[in-house]
Amino acid sequence: MTAKTAAALMIGNEILSGKIEEANLVVLARALRPLGISLRRVVMVSDDIEEIAREVRALADTHDYLVTSGGVGPTHDDVTVEAVAQAFGVSVVSDANVEAMIRQHYGTRCTPGHLRMALIPAGAILEATAQVSWPTIRIKNVWLLPGIPEIFRLKLQVFVEKVGVSSRAFVTHAVYTKMDEGDLKPLLDAIVERYPDVDVGSYPKWHHERYKTKLTFDGQDETRVGAARDAFVALLPPGEPQEITDG
Amino acid sequence: MTAKTAAALMIGNEILSGKIEEANLVVLARALRPLGISLRRVVMVSDDIEEIAREVRALADTHDYLVTSGGVGPTHDDVTVEAVAQAFGVSVVSDANVEAMIRQHYGTRCTPGHLRMALIPAGAILEATAQVSWPTIRIKNVWLLPGIPEIFRLKLQVFVEKVGVSSRAFVTHAVYTKMDEGDLKPLLDAIVERYPDVDVGSYPKWHHERYKTKLTFDGQDETRVGAARDAFVALLPPGEPQEITDG
Repeated sequence: MTAKTAAALMIGNEILSGKIEEANLVVLARALRPLGISLRRVVMVSDDIEEIAREVRALADTHDYLVTSGGVGPTHDDVTVEAVAQAFGVSVVSDANVEAMIRQHYGTRCTPGHLRMALIPAGAILEATAQVSWPTIRIKNVWLLPGIPEIFRLKLQVFVEKVGVSSRAFVTHAVYTKMDEGDLKPLLDAIVERYPDVDVGSYPKWHHERYKTKLTFDGQDETRVGAARDAFVALLPPGEPQEITDG
Repeated sequence: MTAKTAAALMIGNEILSGKIEEANLVVLARALRPLGISLRRVVMVSDDIEEIAREVRALADTHDYLVTSGGVGPTHDDVTVEAVAQAFGVSVVSDANVEAMIRQHYGTRCTPGHLRMALIPAGAILEATAQVSWPTIRIKNVWLLPGIPEIFRLKLQVFVEKVGVSSRAFVTHAVYTKMDEGDLKPLLDAIVERYPDVDVGSYPKWHHERYKTKLTFDGQDETRVGAARDAFVALLPPGEPQEITDG
């Protein structure tokens, strides 16, 4: 069973200007692994409708899922709903149920600004779960999540629950050594050749007491991943590895 | 004077799998602001030669500068040099000076794996400064930086020193209020209309004692940025704002 694929589109001038450090990508990436979904591509763009629309079209067409982060809100710089609507060639409409929820929440303080949060691309589905009842906008394979990290995490649970496990979860093993990458290269090449279905990664650490290079073995077939790791360990010289871990 | 533009390409399976949290983007974004360079687009891809090459071509063509992060090293998953060479239609060659530096550094321990770190796209320039003498690879407008955060930061200084200030630095001011975005919208709309050359951002905070929404005013013309901020503050009701800051 081939892994389903996902892309992420992080939206906002504040990320590109370095004003805010993007914090949702790593959470998304880690949430997808147990679902067996492979995150293939991440794009970060500014609050530009045309650019977001173009990117949504391209990413939604070429991946099973697209998750967007940011640009949903009532102010002038929140253009994601409009851009996604444009990407799918639909209009922006106010959802009656969300509008009612907003009116109830704000009561007499409710302004036209607040009501903008009821806008969705026409034909979008409002996803909710027992735990997260405030709706999450989905249109076809595109999930619109807000950029605020706390709410992104909350709504990501809706994605996880609704999409579910689509193929075998990815498993990962790590081996730590005091060897450097130059010396490890021939050993790694041998493993990569024998285990083409296992993703072998090599990550040198700059000044670390315990190790110099971390090797990782990833895949959806636990047996093969374990075998690749063991085969690599067997190639190491005496005194190595320093440590072997799951994950 | 229009701001020069930059794009960033972050390379590595470990970012997309969430194994490593990407940490170089925010450093790059912040380093570009004082140079007056506008970071317009960030793409993150896996260790795939074809995909990296395609992305390098596209980003280098459409921006003044492209900075890549990751995939430079001696192991099988380090494919950035080869991909960039492919993007520019040149071969990969070993640089004699870097090779000599590597041989001197490793001495009798030097392996073919170590010598792979001397590989560069043919025609690339090896940039160095008095502070950072280990060379940084540049080919045309593309700078190849390593993914290890400590070395990325070090080599970014070479980029900063060599590229220099290309137009007026970006300045930013922030205003903190206890108002929510729904109430702020009409005020912000008025400012955005009057100051189209100032980038106005609105960032709600989820549970914060001191404020609810942070408004930011960015641009290259300090007078205009300050005027937009002051005009916005003048629209606020009594008791607001909570705070005004530079940056």
